[in-house]
Amino acid sequence: MNDLPHGRRSRRPHRQAGAFAQMPWRIPVNTDRPTEPLPPEGVAAIHDGAMAILRDIGIEFLNDEALAIFRQAGCRVEGANVRMDADFVTEMVARAPASFPITPRNPDRRVEVGGRHIVFVNVSSPPNSWDMVRGKRSGDFSTFQDFMKLTQVFNCIHVAGGYPVEPIDIHPAIRHLDCIAAKLTLTDKVVHAYSLGRERVEDAMEMVRIAGGLTDAQFRETPRMYTNINSVSPLKHDFPMIDGALRCARAGQGVIVTPFTLAGAMAPVTLAGAVALSLAEALSAIALLQFAAPGCPVGLGTFTSNVDMKSGAPAFGTPEYMRATQMTGQMARFYGLPLRSSGVCTANIPDAQAMWETSNSLWAAVQSGSNLVYHAAGWLEGGLIASPEKFVLDCEVLQMIQRYMEPSLTATGPDEIALDAIAEVGSGGHYFGCAHTQVRYEQAFYAPIASDWRNFEAWEAAGAEDSIARAHRIANALIEGFEPPPMDPAIAEELAAFVARRKAEGGAPTDF
Amino acid sequence: MNDLPHGRRSRRPHRQAGAFAQMPWRIPVNTDRPTEPLPPEGVAAIHDGAMAILRDIGIEFLNDEALAIFRQAGCRVEGANVRMDADFVTEMVARAPASFPITPRNPDRRVEVGGRHIVFVNVSSPPNSWDMVRGKRSGDFSTFQDFMKLTQVFNCIHVAGGYPVEPIDIHPAIRHLDCIAAKLTLTDKVVHAYSLGRERVEDAMEMVRIAGGLTDAQFRETPRMYTNINSVSPLKHDFPMIDGALRCARAGQGVIVTPFTLAGAMAPVTLAGAVALSLAEALSAIALLQFAAPGCPVGLGTFTSNVDMKSGAPAFGTPEYMRATQMTGQMARFYGLPLRSSGVCTANIPDAQAMWETSNSLWAAVQSGSNLVYHAAGWLEGGLIASPEKFVLDCEVLQMIQRYMEPSLTATGPDEIALDAIAEVGSGGHYFGCAHTQVRYEQAFYAPIASDWRNFEAWEAAGAEDSIARAHRIANALIEGFEPPPMDPAIAEELAAFVARRKAEGGAPTDF
Repeated sequence: MNDLPHGRRSRRPHRQAGAFAQMPWRIPVNTDRPTEPLPPEGVAAIHDGAMAILRDIGIEFLNDEALAIFRQAGCRVEGANVRMDADFVTEMVARAPASFPITPRNPDRRVEVGGRHIVFVNVSSPPNSWDMVRGKRSGDFSTFQDFMKLTQVFNCIHVAGGYPVEPIDIHPAIRHLDCIAAKLTLTDKVVHAYSLGRERVEDAMEMVRIAGGLTDAQFRETPRMYTNINSVSPLKHDFPMIDGALRCARAGQGVIVTPFTLAGAMAPVTLAGAVALSLAEALSAIALLQFAAPGCPVGLGTFTSNVDMKSGAPAFGTPEYMRATQMTGQMARFYGLPLRSSGVCTANIPDAQAMWETSNSLWAAVQSGSNLVYHAAGWLEGGLIASPEKFVLDCEVLQMIQRYMEPSLTATGPDEIALDAIAEVGSGGHYFGCAHTQVRYEQAFYAPIASDWRNFEAWEAAGAEDSIARAHRIANALIEGFEPPPMDPAIAEELAAFVARRKAEGGAPTDF
Repeated sequence: MNDLPHGRRSRRPHRQAGAFAQMPWRIPVNTDRPTEPLPPEGVAAIHDGAMAILRDIGIEFLNDEALAIFRQAGCRVEGANVRMDADFVTEMVARAPASFPITPRNPDRRVEVGGRHIVFVNVSSPPNSWDMVRGKRSGDFSTFQDFMKLTQVFNCIHVAGGYPVEPIDIHPAIRHLDCIAAKLTLTDKVVHAYSLGRERVEDAMEMVRIAGGLTDAQFRETPRMYTNINSVSPLKHDFPMIDGALRCARAGQGVIVTPFTLAGAMAPVTLAGAVALSLAEALSAIALLQFAAPGCPVGLGTFTSNVDMKSGAPAFGTPEYMRATQMTGQMARFYGLPLRSSGVCTANIPDAQAMWETSNSLWAAVQSGSNLVYHAAGWLEGGLIASPEKFVLDCEVLQMIQRYMEPSLTATGPDEIALDAIAEVGSGGHYFGCAHTQVRYEQAFYAPIASDWRNFEAWEAAGAEDSIARAHRIANALIEGFEPPPMDPAIAEELAAFVARRKAEGGAPTDF
């Protein structure tokens, strides 16, 4: 199930052993003009709101180094509260690149975060998994590895993000070592590291350096990995996230800042207020990073949704989620920052509800001009479950989005208008047999991986599998047939030795 | 389950007996800028292609009256083939109104077809139904009535379109009489009539007139109903469709012209060619209608999708379908015509696949600026099945689209930016309790009808119903609790007498 050798690209769906045909690796280019619900004065109002929050109310940084940096920058620091002016924030944000690459150990898997690119990341951080045979259960390392195999196999997944499930059968002190080693060996794609303490971040950077066969200077010269940090909404940044972000930024690695502002809970019940709060939190951290490491690669994350009015629980894939994502997209372009959003849902199993919620999220990602789409495959139960079936079904939707963005679909040259073929077939004829069809037939349309397009009777005669059952079968076959991407044995040995040494040293402290 | 009395509108979700809360009746206004994949030269290329088809290749009209009209208009008629110049087509199309109302027997249910309005129509024309208990079976009148009840109950369904299932237990000669009578008594919404022979169209118009308590002049002064006609792609219009369209147009009733151009089968394998062919077919019929009845209300329909490369069967909700719909939307705006598209899928049951395909279709309807969305609730198996469960699930998605289009979501006034609330809550507080939340809480977010937003454990403890099971329960409850909308007994009597008389006369000939 490995992809093509490095340096080669297929222009056609790649048929592999096991007859698994999928679309080729490609970073889709989103040519759609973004959906922009805000008029210019709406953008200005939200910007002014975010700046007023940072100027008049301030935000807590529970990190002494950050406080010292803000003092040095001339911001007003009282206790942990930091207040800063719009001029400072604007000047710092302007230092950020509009777009940046991340180059993993396989350079053919490089992604560009920014511009019109849209990069898909696997599900990250659920504590549990669910599949149709075993039901819901706590995460373990074996399941973690299965998700990494799916992450590697699917060409439409570009980045191995956070842990698809939390492997609680590994002690937290050394969990990051086994997990990052598994990511780096089972995949050759861009990896993420959690900002959960100095040792974890430094270990991750060292392991990525080793896996890439890089010198320290080579590692630092361009982004090789990234971290994603969350604020503690409302208006607080904790110690380890800011610490990890500073370490990554100073090492030239990517940092995405994603406040989790749930309207009506950790943020105002009105979407504009929730977005303004989210921006204040994100921009203050980005300003910090740009002061500490000018020009470092950063992205603006959005995770603004609403609560369920009945239970107070988060709801995802809602109309409010879509609009908040689009509004944040407008703000990201206003600030010239890459945008991260998500492919999320509230549903507990990969049924109809899961897919309309996920479709809403993913189309909002497209409409907002998102550059990085987290949780794009495999997410359920508001992020409490990762599911292999959902992973496969989401990849079908992602492939369709990739196909949707191919310029050939909307080409209008003489060959596409096809007047000769129309004249040839005339009235009441059929296009199957004409030469215009025959030469284009095989590549003309999207070919699905998990959809069943047979009629009801043929589908029923073949066992009447629903989408979940089909996806279960596909996921199992892909995991069973998995072959890891090639890795130089010397590098594999060096990586294993690093993990062994750090385990012997005790790993990371677990009292954070 | 009846709606509010005429003339009153609720600004809040309407809670009815049986605790079925739904969004109020409203015609959504689509404020999103359409997604436009074609540059101006692409629009010109497709227009030129359609005009070249009509000028050089021609289109067959198997209707002598139509041929006589085209001759009178100066078009080149040879046998059934009609060729016409761009000037003629353009001049005729320019006669069509950009938007028109349709007023049913309950004037509060009037819809506007055009502008930025988006009107949702129930599933139309499947021969079969499917539900989770009875499986797939041929349509019958009882099932037809059940779908009409769902059509009436859901506020997000604005129009009672064609037959949700074909009731084969009623003789075709009199089927239209029972079906239209059922539509007119079980719903008070806009109804559609099939153009399948003179008697059926004339009977439908007379029944709509009677149900509205209208004189013949009142019936004709503004659209009270509509028909939808399909061409026989490629490049052919048959007798009864054109006959019915002419009858409706001359009576001032709406006509939607919807070619069914499946790329690779009845149309070129390239989307631009399929769209150009579709436009040639539609515009030629619209030109005919505008010559015969200048200014008559018409709409441009699109039903361009692709075939499954494996089986040759139609596939819906594909990337190709989405782009073809968006491209046709650009052309509809170029011609100044209202656009009809659809909410369609290929899946056989209302599972995950059904909903990503339907979501793709419905978001394409939004992105294309569609004014009338056929099959918006209940469609399965490429149109061969209508399902009550799918109907309920689709209505959830339609309600979310309606909610998505409410301007309040993206408002950015001081009350929405909410600086006072943000200052009040500060760092690390919670927004549940603050006054800003409390006064807005109940109406702040979308409240679902069929989604389950509980966590996994609560959902499992309550029976672990999947989306299909929940929708099944909801559909049954709505059908059982159904109360028809009020109708003046004298009108009901007149309608019944008309049906009885026409049945005694033998209905319509069945040899078409």
